Amino acid sequence: MAARNLLVAQSGGPTTAINASLAGVIAECMRHPEIGIVYGALNGIQGILDHRLIRLDTQFHSADDFRLLEGTPSSALGSCRLKMPSLADGREKYQAILDVFRALDIGYFLYIGGNDSMDTADKMAQFCREAGEDIKVIGIPKTIDNDLVGTDHCPGFGSAAKYIAATLQEIVCDAQVYPVKSVNVVEIMGRNAGWLTAASALARLHGSKAPQLIYLPEVPFDPEQFLSDLRKELDKQDSVVVAVSEGVKLADGRYVAESTQSGAVDAFGHKYLSGVGKYLEQMISAKVGCKVRSIELNVMQRCAAHILSKTDIEEARRAGEEGVKQALAGNTGVMMTFERVSDSPYLINVGTIPLSQVANGEKKVPLEWITPEGNNVTQEAVDHILPLIAGEIPQPSRHGIPLHFHFDQTVVKF
Amino acid sequence: MAARNLLVAQSGGPTTAINASLAGVIAECMRHPEIGIVYGALNGIQGILDHRLIRLDTQFHSADDFRLLEGTPSSALGSCRLKMPSLADGREKYQAILDVFRALDIGYFLYIGGNDSMDTADKMAQFCREAGEDIKVIGIPKTIDNDLVGTDHCPGFGSAAKYIAATLQEIVCDAQVYPVKSVNVVEIMGRNAGWLTAASALARLHGSKAPQLIYLPEVPFDPEQFLSDLRKELDKQDSVVVAVSEGVKLADGRYVAESTQSGAVDAFGHKYLSGVGKYLEQMISAKVGCKVRSIELNVMQRCAAHILSKTDIEEARRAGEEGVKQALAGNTGVMMTFERVSDSPYLINVGTIPLSQVANGEKKVPLEWITPEGNNVTQEAVDHILPLIAGEIPQPSRHGIPLHFHFDQTVVKF
Repeated sequence: MAARNLLVAQSGGPTTAINASLAGVIAECMRHPEIGIVYGALNGIQGILDHRLIRLDTQFHSADDFRLLEGTPSSALGSCRLKMPSLADGREKYQAILDVFRALDIGYFLYIGGNDSMDTADKMAQFCREAGEDIKVIGIPKTIDNDLVGTDHCPGFGSAAKYIAATLQEIVCDAQVYPVKSVNVVEIMGRNAGWLTAASALARLHGSKAPQLIYLPEVPFDPEQFLSDLRKELDKQDSVVVAVSEGVKLADGRYVAESTQSGAVDAFGHKYLSGVGKYLEQMISAKVGCKVRSIELNVMQRCAAHILSKTDIEEARRAGEEGVKQALAGNTGVMMTFERVSDSPYLINVGTIPLSQVANGEKKVPLEWITPEGNNVTQEAVDHILPLIAGEIPQPSRHGIPLHFHFDQTVVKF
Repeated sequence: MAARNLLVAQSGGPTTAINASLAGVIAECMRHPEIGIVYGALNGIQGILDHRLIRLDTQFHSADDFRLLEGTPSSALGSCRLKMPSLADGREKYQAILDVFRALDIGYFLYIGGNDSMDTADKMAQFCREAGEDIKVIGIPKTIDNDLVGTDHCPGFGSAAKYIAATLQEIVCDAQVYPVKSVNVVEIMGRNAGWLTAASALARLHGSKAPQLIYLPEVPFDPEQFLSDLRKELDKQDSVVVAVSEGVKLADGRYVAESTQSGAVDAFGHKYLSGVGKYLEQMISAKVGCKVRSIELNVMQRCAAHILSKTDIEEARRAGEEGVKQALAGNTGVMMTFERVSDSPYLINVGTIPLSQVANGEKKVPLEWITPEGNNVTQEAVDHILPLIAGEIPQPSRHGIPLHFHFDQTVVKF
């Protein structure tokens, strides 16, 4: 069998594990003579349409190079937010991609991304099949939100969860130094799924009671009940830390932050949009009157590669490696998955699921893992997340700053 | 000579190095039989007034205990913001503290803190002298702001600078993934001194051009010039990252953020106060119109003990150790200082300066280290900060989360 080439791309929001999957793909390709050249598309599917492809396999000269890429945050090949049309509405776009595949003798296409990317991969697999092309399409999951269905958890979540737990534990130390009543509200990513916010509970692993209150978007948020919960906690201790998902909603389904805007305009006459953390800060200041601060973990929770979960990075790499093996075995139109065999010892199997079963689903935190009061998570939630943050990866540094991997982005002419 | 006891306390804003100085003080005391019991006051000078003192030396059983305390963020003994009266106005407060010193046979008082704390220590030293009491008072500097005079730099700054540089480098990775024009504005602590914001330039150590624009409070901020600078950078590349000090001011001396409030009220009818990052985000959105995000490094920059500068932590410990030695040598009314002997190899001497020369000063970034355009720092600034972030300290962890030291806070009865 003549060697055929492989194309890999990254899409969606960046994570600290998406490059570990890329490293796994490239390394596995280099182990198999059936795979010729390894190409990478810059900025995901957009880069394929724009003919911006680079050669990857020639850029790795030692195990250290792979390690460096694994510790590099965000999509090293760049990303895109291109929403592909349906096959019925936009065949010319899929045809343009297939033309690139044919021009470069691509036999395998691996797409590392979240929900939308799995949808794109699904459609591309279908288009290739319908065109009678023997091109294997494999999806490699990544998302800090951990909301993809069909897999126990997603690469990228464990490192973000570890950052959140470790940072919350530090914020709790910072919050407790003054002997005055105070509230710190920490806003955490997750519009619809509260996995990351649930991870804040792991800040209590070493004995802290904080964060005392945790609010997920899976259950309605009642501002009056929140104030009541908060006052009870302030009676028990000086410093209360609240973890809240950016996506918490009122009972009527509106986002807490958006539903409660004052109509105020900023200095430039634009409607002022605050996040839920800032909104709760204002509410606590007005209604409780104690010292209050809001903290947004912002993009740091998805790019803080200086504190990686070893488990997450190893699993992300493995998802990439196994994806290549699946493609070589003739599988197509599937996403790589993790199946949890046991919590303790923590063991997983790597498997696959048809992309069509993933593309339009969304996995939320089970309601039974949220306390009846809706202001905390249960031990089951903690036990589920705990193994995913395990282990540290010392980052190679120079001059006190971590070293990252950067691709030579010279575009291949064809 | 009969052994006399030592009292140590922490004050001001927390840092990730303040506990390393505390560890140095306790360890050094345990090396000297001339020192009996080591007491710690909870919440600084306030804890002395309130008779909330705990015993420290009995809580350390191995070198690991000291290492754990060194890696624990924020003031492990708690802090306070108590502004002490002048000696003329409030002798009874100083007398109350002296009464505690006498009751517990305190011969040495070490106060770890910033500007205000050095002022308190200065007055207390003076009061003891005037009362004819042989009590040695030593100040140990700490501040992430790095603004204390009389010392090359302050314990606490190096670790905060390292966090800022490493995090900026990660934010730059995150900011570059989409091929669209975008601006990320990162707001960094420092009301009057721009040392921490200057440290953002170290994110360029490994070849990045970002942050392309850096604004310190030492020079006036001109919004029109900023927009012009920004547009020029956006012409050169898609992604521009701006580092800005929370304390940047207009030419008329008003803070940029406060001067430009719209008068808008929040959802509770209170005047809305945004930080400079949010303000610039709104301005860029209105005037430039590209994708824009503001990121506040918030308390993480002063409590992220999971990424410590080894140099900073070792120096902080040494400042504590040498402080004890100075007290034993009979010195009083002084603050410990670092004198830089050379940049490369990086060498310092530890010395002292009279507290009276420190108490009311403020050390800013030299104007010659800021570019003539006022939108960047020079290589001299980078060279100065570089050695202070050097070296990593692997943190002991369990279950994937760093371990911290917590004192048994049982108060001593007297």
